[in-house]
Amino acid sequence: MTDLATVQDDLVAANRILAGLGVVDGFGHVSARHPGHPDHYLLSRSLAPELVTRDDIMTFDLDSQPVGGDTRNAYLEKSIHGEIYRARADVHAVVHSHAAAVVPFAASSVTLRPIYHMSSFLRAGAKVFEIRERFAATDMLIRTNAQGAALADKLGDDAVVLMRGHGFCSVGETLAVAVFRAFYTQTNADLQQGAVALGGSVTFLDAEEAMRADASNRSVIARPWGLWKSKFAPSADR
Amino acid sequence: MTDLATVQDDLVAANRILAGLGVVDGFGHVSARHPGHPDHYLLSRSLAPELVTRDDIMTFDLDSQPVGGDTRNAYLEKSIHGEIYRARADVHAVVHSHAAAVVPFAASSVTLRPIYHMSSFLRAGAKVFEIRERFAATDMLIRTNAQGAALADKLGDDAVVLMRGHGFCSVGETLAVAVFRAFYTQTNADLQQGAVALGGSVTFLDAEEAMRADASNRSVIARPWGLWKSKFAPSADR
Amino acid sequence: MTDLATVQDDLVAANRILAGLGVVDGFGHVSARHPGHPDHYLLSRSLAPELVTRDDIMTFDLDSQPVGGDTRNAYLEKSIHGEIYRARADVHAVVHSHAAAVVPFAASSVTLRPIYHMSSFLRAGAKVFEIRERFAATDMLIRTNAQGAALADKLGDDAVVLMRGHGFCSVGETLAVAVFRAFYTQTNADLQQGAVALGGSVTFLDAEEAMRADASNRSVIARPWGLWKSKFAPSADR
Amino acid sequence: MTDLATVQDDLVAANRILAGLGVVDGFGHVSARHPGHPDHYLLSRSLAPELVTRDDIMTFDLDSQPVGGDTRNAYLEKSIHGEIYRARADVHAVVHSHAAAVVPFAASSVTLRPIYHMSSFLRAGAKVFEIRERFAATDMLIRTNAQGAALADKLGDDAVVLMRGHGFCSVGETLAVAVFRAFYTQTNADLQQGAVALGGSVTFLDAEEAMRADASNRSVIARPWGLWKSKFAPSADR
Repeated sequence: MTDLATVQDDLVAANRILAGLGVVDGFGHVSARHPGHPDHYLLSRSLAPELVTRDDIMTFDLDSQPVGGDTRNAYLEKSIHGEIYRARADVHAVVHSHAAAVVPFAASSVTLRPIYHMSSFLRAGAKVFEIRERFAATDMLIRTNAQGAALADKLGDDAVVLMRGHGFCSVGETLAVAVFRAFYTQTNADLQQGAVALGGSVTFLDAEEAMRADASNRSVIARPWGLWKSKFAPSADR
Repeated sequence: MTDLATVQDDLVAANRILAGLGVVDGFGHVSARHPGHPDHYLLSRSLAPELVTRDDIMTFDLDSQPVGGDTRNAYLEKSIHGEIYRARADVHAVVHSHAAAVVPFAASSVTLRPIYHMSSFLRAGAKVFEIRERFAATDMLIRTNAQGAALADKLGDDAVVLMRGHGFCSVGETLAVAVFRAFYTQTNADLQQGAVALGGSVTFLDAEEAMRADASNRSVIARPWGLWKSKFAPSADR
Repeated sequence: MTDLATVQDDLVAANRILAGLGVVDGFGHVSARHPGHPDHYLLSRSLAPELVTRDDIMTFDLDSQPVGGDTRNAYLEKSIHGEIYRARADVHAVVHSHAAAVVPFAASSVTLRPIYHMSSFLRAGAKVFEIRERFAATDMLIRTNAQGAALADKLGDDAVVLMRGHGFCSVGETLAVAVFRAFYTQTNADLQQGAVALGGSVTFLDAEEAMRADASNRSVIARPWGLWKSKFAPSADR
Repeated sequence: MTDLATVQDDLVAANRILAGLGVVDGFGHVSARHPGHPDHYLLSRSLAPELVTRDDIMTFDLDSQPVGGDTRNAYLEKSIHGEIYRARADVHAVVHSHAAAVVPFAASSVTLRPIYHMSSFLRAGAKVFEIRERFAATDMLIRTNAQGAALADKLGDDAVVLMRGHGFCSVGETLAVAVFRAFYTQTNADLQQGAVALGGSVTFLDAEEAMRADASNRSVIARPWGLWKSKFAPSADR
């Protein structure tokens, strides 16, 4: 089992990496399930990701209540994390982002689909969560556990879910996997934009190719993760 | 009431931040209403925004005449600021920009509309000021108070107004809000370009979503503003 | 009259600025007419522009022959410069570039036209030089004075000429003007791409607006030029 | 004949340059034929290209087996290199990349063609390798010599081959040529995207122009190669 200190260091690194890769800016957040208490998760206090240090990490239960009487300001949308961890025992890390390349697909009737092996985790295409379906007019944020649960429900067994008029979430069995998927969701969105704009027919990975490629990517994930740490989180990488 | 020194520091920071975010380059400017004299405003002398320091700030009255016999070169388009402050008592900061992502919408019949919550201040869509309607052939600049007043008139109660063949202005109750809106006007333009290019149908925020999301954004504006200060204006942030 | 040392310093700065702005990379070049000998021009030896120093500057006559027995390698396309100076007494600086944003217009039947005041020097639209019209199959380069003269002929009285399958040239009465026009040719290309992609109608500057705006831009050109020098050529700016 | 130390230094530089130019990220690789043993080639151990040093270079035979009992982890797709060197005696360097601009063309029915002289090595247009044609459902990777040989077969006598749902390879008689071609394949993809999006007709280089321009580019390749070394691999350039 991974120990707590390692997860904390990786969580700080994940914040810096996501900022460095342009997946998050002043907004967006990333969490990790507590390695010793699977019904707890770790998430920074409300802070821009690239400024996050180990001391900023708070612990929450699956109702997204702070543990241990921590009264610091939490992100408004912490329920995204709590409800995904509740629904998905296999998930140990969650990224939420407004990455610019992805938002157009969250507003469009066109489905985000895997255009190459790196984004094979998109499988048959990313679903889009439409908050209006169950919650009428909102400020678009996931402010309640009920909204978080509806989002987790739309995610289902997938690796990524888009959010209409808002952004997306990616999940993984480790922080490296969730960050990898967030980055390549962003990249795939750029690539698919390009392919659509060419005006010809576009061939996406089929279901079996996507399944096989996803397994292969996970076998080499230490390579990009190590590179990203060395570039964006050197001090977090002792 | 915010004191003058704080507004001056924030105005220097706003100049640096807008340059750092690519909203302004050698051109563009940002002003603040004087905190003690609501019929005065603060604006740098004619200078590239990223070079602006506290000593470069001039004070103007609402006719855009320099106060106190200041004879330094002013921006040619200072009337943009004076006339918006005259027309809008709620506005305490104004940004003018030629940001590349926005200009296509200022030349196009397609309306810039809020594609996600971050740009909800665009509401039902940004209006476009057509200088030819009242002033025939010009060099496209707002050189007179009459032109500034016509622009303020087109802005109406909105947060943003585009200018055909030129750029746009954003306004806010603080410098942080006006800068936030300038940046996310630019971002929304990029995102909407992407969504349109996908060729499917595009869902924008509806009026109530936009109103609610705009309120939420203003409640967390200290987060991006603090990040931007730390990145682009560290020395201006003592 | 500007003295030689000033022009040499400005020419080094122009090389660094064009590289810093992404207008040139390993290829592309910029020249200035000799301030004391209008039938001579100054151009670096064959070198990537961002590496150019004062010692790299060679002098050529209008036949693009090196003056003073200088035997260093010259750019293959020096005739671009010699023939434009021969044809246009008003021109004192020439930029040649393969800037990525511009090449699509050099290959397309769609005309590059001024979408905002900053690029008003494009007037009724940039013409495209088609080398095949007079020289059959070539390697696309301007290798002879006859080819340079044909290019200068296509330029006519304009500020910019595109070159099919190759790039473009901009000219001006000073280095600052030619550099400004090269940069905003690149920017306009990006903006027009965006406006076309929106799919609606696009309004360009009309002839009188363009003429007026071009005059205004030249009156404030010291502002971007000073900014660019401070960012990209600080040591060249003593 | 180039000596081994020079090729090793150039190979380290090529790794850094490709990373610096955005042609490779955590993935992608570049190799060189051994200058003394044409049936051997040099390729880093499995590592992100921008981290590669001389000590990371392994030697392989044309069956892509490590020479000299080297047991370090090799890239999964080393057969790309071995099989191209086996099929093409004229090739002394191979780049494999997932560069974002190129992948859309690898998924599209639209052919990547030379839009300007810099990418004239694309000649009549880049072919696309469809792994499904001979290997049914895979994880898209070139994992076997048979797959590598099929890719080399599709490459034929060309300079570049695209790989559906994956990326592309470029080859050359030196590392400088293969890197130049990888970079300008990426650039051409961007430019052609732009030209297509304009909606008019697009004129590409014809066969004779492409042949002539390719020869000219190779005559001046030291200029971009020297610039790239000075920018991205200064310490590798002693």
